[in-house]
Amino acid sequence: MSTIAIVYFSGGGHTHLMAEAIAVGVHTAGHSPDLLRITGEQIEQGRWQDDRFMARLANADAIVFGSPTYMGGVAAQFKAFIDAASSAWFVQQWKDKIAAGFTHSSSPSGDKQGTLLYLAIHAAQHGMVWVGATDMPSQYQGKTDGINRLGSFLGVMGQSTMTMDGSPAALESGDRLTAELFGQRIAVAVERWAIDTTVAVTA
Amino acid sequence: MSTIAIVYFSGGGHTHLMAEAIAVGVHTAGHSPDLLRITGEQIEQGRWQDDRFMARLANADAIVFGSPTYMGGVAAQFKAFIDAASSAWFVQQWKDKIAAGFTHSSSPSGDKQGTLLYLAIHAAQHGMVWVGATDMPSQYQGKTDGINRLGSFLGVMGQSTMTMDGSPAALESGDRLTAELFGQRIAVAVERWAIDTTVAVTA
Amino acid sequence: MSTIAIVYFSGGGHTHLMAEAIAVGVHTAGHSPDLLRITGEQIEQGRWQDDRFMARLANADAIVFGSPTYMGGVAAQFKAFIDAASSAWFVQQWKDKIAAGFTHSSSPSGDKQGTLLYLAIHAAQHGMVWVGATDMPSQYQGKTDGINRLGSFLGVMGQSTMTMDGSPAALESGDRLTAELFGQRIAVAVERWAIDTTVAVTA
Amino acid sequence: MSTIAIVYFSGGGHTHLMAEAIAVGVHTAGHSPDLLRITGEQIEQGRWQDDRFMARLANADAIVFGSPTYMGGVAAQFKAFIDAASSAWFVQQWKDKIAAGFTHSSSPSGDKQGTLLYLAIHAAQHGMVWVGATDMPSQYQGKTDGINRLGSFLGVMGQSTMTMDGSPAALESGDRLTAELFGQRIAVAVERWAIDTTVAVTA
Repeated sequence: MSTIAIVYFSGGGHTHLMAEAIAVGVHTAGHSPDLLRITGEQIEQGRWQDDRFMARLANADAIVFGSPTYMGGVAAQFKAFIDAASSAWFVQQWKDKIAAGFTHSSSPSGDKQGTLLYLAIHAAQHGMVWVGATDMPSQYQGKTDGINRLGSFLGVMGQSTMTMDGSPAALESGDRLTAELFGQRIAVAVERWAIDTTVAVTA
Repeated sequence: MSTIAIVYFSGGGHTHLMAEAIAVGVHTAGHSPDLLRITGEQIEQGRWQDDRFMARLANADAIVFGSPTYMGGVAAQFKAFIDAASSAWFVQQWKDKIAAGFTHSSSPSGDKQGTLLYLAIHAAQHGMVWVGATDMPSQYQGKTDGINRLGSFLGVMGQSTMTMDGSPAALESGDRLTAELFGQRIAVAVERWAIDTTVAVTA
Repeated sequence: MSTIAIVYFSGGGHTHLMAEAIAVGVHTAGHSPDLLRITGEQIEQGRWQDDRFMARLANADAIVFGSPTYMGGVAAQFKAFIDAASSAWFVQQWKDKIAAGFTHSSSPSGDKQGTLLYLAIHAAQHGMVWVGATDMPSQYQGKTDGINRLGSFLGVMGQSTMTMDGSPAALESGDRLTAELFGQRIAVAVERWAIDTTVAVTA
Repeated sequence: MSTIAIVYFSGGGHTHLMAEAIAVGVHTAGHSPDLLRITGEQIEQGRWQDDRFMARLANADAIVFGSPTYMGGVAAQFKAFIDAASSAWFVQQWKDKIAAGFTHSSSPSGDKQGTLLYLAIHAAQHGMVWVGATDMPSQYQGKTDGINRLGSFLGVMGQSTMTMDGSPAALESGDRLTAELFGQRIAVAVERWAIDTTVAVTA
């Protein structure tokens, strides 16, 4: 059983729900999700620190990165985590781990692709292997289940119209389903990637 | 009166309809649109050529670039035009012209942001000044007219569900309206930008 | 005389030197630079706040954004400023201001283009007009002054090999010159853009 | 032994030399490279076609995509291939193949990152798994062999100063070495990825 860390920031709660849906998918595929939610409290004078998080990420077989798209990019709190994780970069600690990404915003496009592009750039700096979303948009399959309804490929996107009435965050059912399938997809990729050549040969 | 060239490729017809809507906006604002549609016939052995197009672009005060998002980027036919226009780049013929961009695809996100990013990169190489879309998404204004319903800022996006029944291309009314307002926006920017300092001072 | 704000974060000092060089260019062109350096002290629990900064940005005719490229994107401290500036976005306070961007890192490419793309995405969300760098790389002009030696167009890039010996940050002379010319370029654009149509007509 | 297709366009010859260097690396790692060079002759009226190429790509275990960076993006001829390969996309023929990318231009930065970002976007649409470059820039290791001298991570970049004297294309030795190591890196990843879970279990 592999461990798949899902490290994310969530302000309004939508990205948190997406993280949970991905965790459900990972679990369904028989693997172990490790939800790591970044908070503002971990940041002092602009610098993020949480040694326990870093230890769990070091032990994970895959890391799924998630952030809302705020002002066209990842949230500052998420970037503070990224910058602190340069300590892992210097020693290439995450090299050859599987990486994936997801994001959420209030508009269908909403510059979310830029966020996923950034997550892929960052994962490449760490020498990670990037697994994207592979579900074709529902319409191409004559379905209306909302799977990949936004048409995203580098990673998974969610979109929820912003409400100001204080009601709790909720996901579109299609977005939740897309995130769950993405969790399964990542787990299967980790399984395939995890098999060490030497072990397989001797087996 | 300024001339605003709209140079674009359109396969299925949607991008053409967006170009026409932008032209309507330019006209409404009292300026002259010049619609230049790229075709496959202009391309021989992979190389695009049309001296008449290039002359009209050289004379325009602004150039609006448009392409469907095909396989995550501008259509090859559009890129063939771009590559041929490197002749204008070498002499920085388009320097200081106003530039803007638009794209269309069949999914709400559909990697269209990547296309607009590319158009902005290209315009920057030419030393052009980039004018984006400035209409806030309707929902932020409590409106349902569909203006900027997709949430795009670098330029304008259109989205139409792909049909296979041979019916003619049509735009969502919100996308058409967004494109018209974008045409007006560009025209106003060209008007403001066009005033030469020296002329203004002597006037 | 126009005011051109240069708002930036600098860790090691190189981005600060680039900001100063841009300010020199703005001054040379007869306009007033306003250097605003973001610091970690402005960030509490992950949130940036500085009302004085925001007031000066509101009054500026142009805003030049600058950040080192850390882990493939803008520094977290800079993003904290950006996220806080969503207060200006909601009321489109910066709409129609001129925007520009610059970045620095230790490698020639070093994923700096991604940072400039992000800065352009962000400026577009604010409805700003983007002015890029227009100096052709020196080699195309048979010169060796190092102007635009890295080949950047969306904005200006600087690159300095990382030293670990504690020596003070220094810029390549070509990068400094490129930044100064960029400051002039922005100032001229602001001058041209600033002329109000009505005023010009009545004059 | 796995087959790793390297499909690329090259105008001036530099990208061709990079493709050859990657092929050397693949061969060194004990696998079989398949060099597929796109030419303008394959394009009629803007449309690319070569059924033999498509068959060889369908059979490959990995596809490495390469194009010069022309006017800020992949060459039009390369994009014509990409657009034609939408036939493979519709049936997700390349799904779960390993993908990687490389590019070349005449400036150190030269907007090459945008090209690699595009190649990654495109591979994600096909459901491919993206393997980046993992060699840290030489300077971080106190070496002067030029490995990853430009600081690129999503894929490999080459840079050669443009000459106008008709001398044959040549690569910097560091860029050649970087490309060879990239070929080895991809081959090792394909080897690891290629092991089918079922087979391993039954063995």
